[in-house]
Amino acid sequence: MADWSYWVGMAATVAFAVTAVLAVSPKGIDFFGASVLGIITAIGGGTVRDLILGVPVFWAGDLTYIWVALASSLLAFRVGSWFSQRRVNSLMLYLDGFGAALFGIEAVDKVWKLSFALPLGPIILGIVTAIGGGLIRDVLAGRKTLLMSRDIYAIPVMLGCTLYLLVLVKFPEYSVLGAFAGVLVSFGIRAAAIHWSLAVPAWLATEPKAS
Amino acid sequence: MADWSYWVGMAATVAFAVTAVLAVSPKGIDFFGASVLGIITAIGGGTVRDLILGVPVFWAGDLTYIWVALASSLLAFRVGSWFSQRRVNSLMLYLDGFGAALFGIEAVDKVWKLSFALPLGPIILGIVTAIGGGLIRDVLAGRKTLLMSRDIYAIPVMLGCTLYLLVLVKFPEYSVLGAFAGVLVSFGIRAAAIHWSLAVPAWLATEPKAS
Amino acid sequence: MADWSYWVGMAATVAFAVTAVLAVSPKGIDFFGASVLGIITAIGGGTVRDLILGVPVFWAGDLTYIWVALASSLLAFRVGSWFSQRRVNSLMLYLDGFGAALFGIEAVDKVWKLSFALPLGPIILGIVTAIGGGLIRDVLAGRKTLLMSRDIYAIPVMLGCTLYLLVLVKFPEYSVLGAFAGVLVSFGIRAAAIHWSLAVPAWLATEPKAS
Repeated sequence: MADWSYWVGMAATVAFAVTAVLAVSPKGIDFFGASVLGIITAIGGGTVRDLILGVPVFWAGDLTYIWVALASSLLAFRVGSWFSQRRVNSLMLYLDGFGAALFGIEAVDKVWKLSFALPLGPIILGIVTAIGGGLIRDVLAGRKTLLMSRDIYAIPVMLGCTLYLLVLVKFPEYSVLGAFAGVLVSFGIRAAAIHWSLAVPAWLATEPKAS
Repeated sequence: MADWSYWVGMAATVAFAVTAVLAVSPKGIDFFGASVLGIITAIGGGTVRDLILGVPVFWAGDLTYIWVALASSLLAFRVGSWFSQRRVNSLMLYLDGFGAALFGIEAVDKVWKLSFALPLGPIILGIVTAIGGGLIRDVLAGRKTLLMSRDIYAIPVMLGCTLYLLVLVKFPEYSVLGAFAGVLVSFGIRAAAIHWSLAVPAWLATEPKAS
Repeated sequence: MADWSYWVGMAATVAFAVTAVLAVSPKGIDFFGASVLGIITAIGGGTVRDLILGVPVFWAGDLTYIWVALASSLLAFRVGSWFSQRRVNSLMLYLDGFGAALFGIEAVDKVWKLSFALPLGPIILGIVTAIGGGLIRDVLAGRKTLLMSRDIYAIPVMLGCTLYLLVLVKFPEYSVLGAFAGVLVSFGIRAAAIHWSLAVPAWLATEPKAS
């Protein structure tokens, strides 16, 4: 499974970098700023996770993550008009959701193996890994962060990570199956939210007030 | 004193989480985003402090901080209308100031014991612990940070932390008394600022210019 | 060279703190907020670098950086009207560019000696050190970050750091010369950009779209 997970991780890195560049391009940006934000989005969440864990940052040992994020960012910047065609853009949204799902599950695995802050630690850092890079990107780009929207983006990650953690605790012999189930739940709910434009229901949210 | 300080720390955690949720709710947010911001506000400052100190983050060893922040956030989100009644809201402002005072003094104690970057280290990290979580919250929520206001919020923390550090350096035999005095100075000035709506005087501030 | 570099580092600290205070003053700020932002700008980038490297933060071992940043910030706040005179302000812009150049090269040196994430690590952390503090300042002050502008600010740092790294890899016997060349390239391009108001050309940037 290691090999499979590595390549999907790379696909997620591509998706995160590309969607980041597409998100910030309409605000007016040059190739350098776009690349920096693409790389930060792809590796920011995992970097914060590793700092909190007190372990070496994951990309220090394998710079492929950075090279792939850089190349994807530059490509997305160059051919942005192609990527923003509706069909390709939609594909990217799904791939981004898949990336978030996978990064979350990978993080649960890493945190679980380190026995860090059990039982909440793996779930918290799963969410941090999946959404941290996007939060930093939005803050640096002056965009509203996803925490202030009613998008169903981080909640599926939380559910998938919780499911996987439950399997690790209760049925460790099914950990591989649990990882697949976690990704499936996380990505499945996210995909449904994208497809049917679902949002957190109004009774679980507050309305913005005129200031 | 350890027990006493632990429970007041928990009260401060409640206050930080609740005031965070009350602060971001008017911008329109769902229960998930509100909880994340509540938790970040309660534990963010101490987390940054521990990263700079190079020690394990404090909540990894006692997840009660997270559970309490989560429960307080969800409660504040659910019964926000009650909390925002003027009297309760006012109580929360004072409790928040008390929390900042206590978190600052606790941080001075921790940094002093580690002999980190003396003499400035304890004061710097006392301020970071007291206001760091609120700064991260405001940045993620797209609100103006307290650094850009003339609120008397961080200055009392600085004075309280400095006083306690002076006692630790000059009269270590009175450290418990010094801690109480530090909290008293910090909270006293903050409470006076809340009660009389005091702000940093104009000659110590610049006026915003039309851009 | 150590002594020389130390004093130029201090000059860069002054420049970073002063330009930070001048940048945020027009938004309306008090002396405390201005000092915090001045210090963060001066030491923020190097602090993030050290956290990622997993080494003690540089200012913990020499608080002079903090004292100098604090004094410069308070001075800039007090006599801001003098500093913003066109000639002095212009001098500060150049000194800020020189500071960024130097901080970048110093970071390459530190990261190279730690053999961290070669070959990209030194360049990435050189850029982080040079612009990280300014990014945090702008986020906390609610200003547009330099990543969203077409200013030629970080690109020269990247080129200077890359040049110095190439010298370290290929001609380690000329490392001192390489450091000078790196600073020269980085500062030279930045100075040209300031003098002739150069920006990243339009074909390497996107136009902001009405939202």
